[in-house]
Amino acid sequence: MPTLYEISVPIFTRALRNLDHLLEKAAGSGIDEQSLLEARLSPDMLPLTRQVQIACDTAKLAVTRVAQTEPRPMEDTETNLTELRDRIARTLAYLNDAAPAAFDGRETAEIIMKFPNSEMKFTGQSLLTDFSLPNFFFHVTTAYGLLRMKGVPIGKMDFLAGGSGGS
Amino acid sequence: MPTLYEISVPIFTRALRNLDHLLEKAAGSGIDEQSLLEARLSPDMLPLTRQVQIACDTAKLAVTRVAQTEPRPMEDTETNLTELRDRIARTLAYLNDAAPAAFDGRETAEIIMKFPNSEMKFTGQSLLTDFSLPNFFFHVTTAYGLLRMKGVPIGKMDFLAGGSGGS
Repeated sequence: MPTLYEISVPIFTRALRNLDHLLEKAAGSGIDEQSLLEARLSPDMLPLTRQVQIACDTAKLAVTRVAQTEPRPMEDTETNLTELRDRIARTLAYLNDAAPAAFDGRETAEIIMKFPNSEMKFTGQSLLTDFSLPNFFFHVTTAYGLLRMKGVPIGKMDFLAGGSGGS
Repeated sequence: MPTLYEISVPIFTRALRNLDHLLEKAAGSGIDEQSLLEARLSPDMLPLTRQVQIACDTAKLAVTRVAQTEPRPMEDTETNLTELRDRIARTLAYLNDAAPAAFDGRETAEIIMKFPNSEMKFTGQSLLTDFSLPNFFFHVTTAYGLLRMKGVPIGKMDFLAGGSGGS
């Protein structure tokens, strides 16, 4: 049976590397960078910059909460693709620092997520299956969709396999 | 540690119920249904109808392959939201029929996915973590993005928690 580590860190790592690959292709596309960063699927949805930031944070905070690792705050100050790729690199480094053993025995641990007007209760396991994985892929996929909508030459294999997946 | 069943069937079931909830809201939105069904994020991406069909198939085929359940072919003939919701219902029924015990011991089983010009090799576990979950959420999220882009009144909690999540 997979461990909680195996259903979080390697999945996040793989997808964030692929997201970095997508942003690299975006940077090389010649498409106006500001228009990419500000792209939204609808006027009341978040732009590309925030999609990447939240994807990073969802992965990072899942590890912080489940493995009880030291929090590593990251300010949302990125203003270009290079800085977003650096945010991804810092998130990948944080994931890489997480010890698999720190996830052991956290399956039934109570984890409470607090929001301004509510809270959600999870176990270590359900945080990953019911919130972190769906939310993480929501933001990575939306980032992909925004780049594709703006004409960046990427395809499904870039999403699934990144730089190792051909086109 | 979670079982392979726990990192597939309940996750797919939850997200497909939420997707059904999104389509129900779409049907009640008063927005021209044909324009929703044909919506694409870019001209060379698949329309909403195909996003829903592939989300269903990704979940269904993951279970077929990992749990070695009887295949249940479903033709891609849906032409309206009601039929797409029926496709989701039939997929949910298939997932519900899968016995948790059928996933046991399939972690390292070799599973080969064949494409017209290539093949991908997985284990039972890596099929779920490296392909099925990312691909499934790709299509569910893209369906959400298309509905949102077209003005259907849905929000993030509809994606994460469906009918039980308020707005």
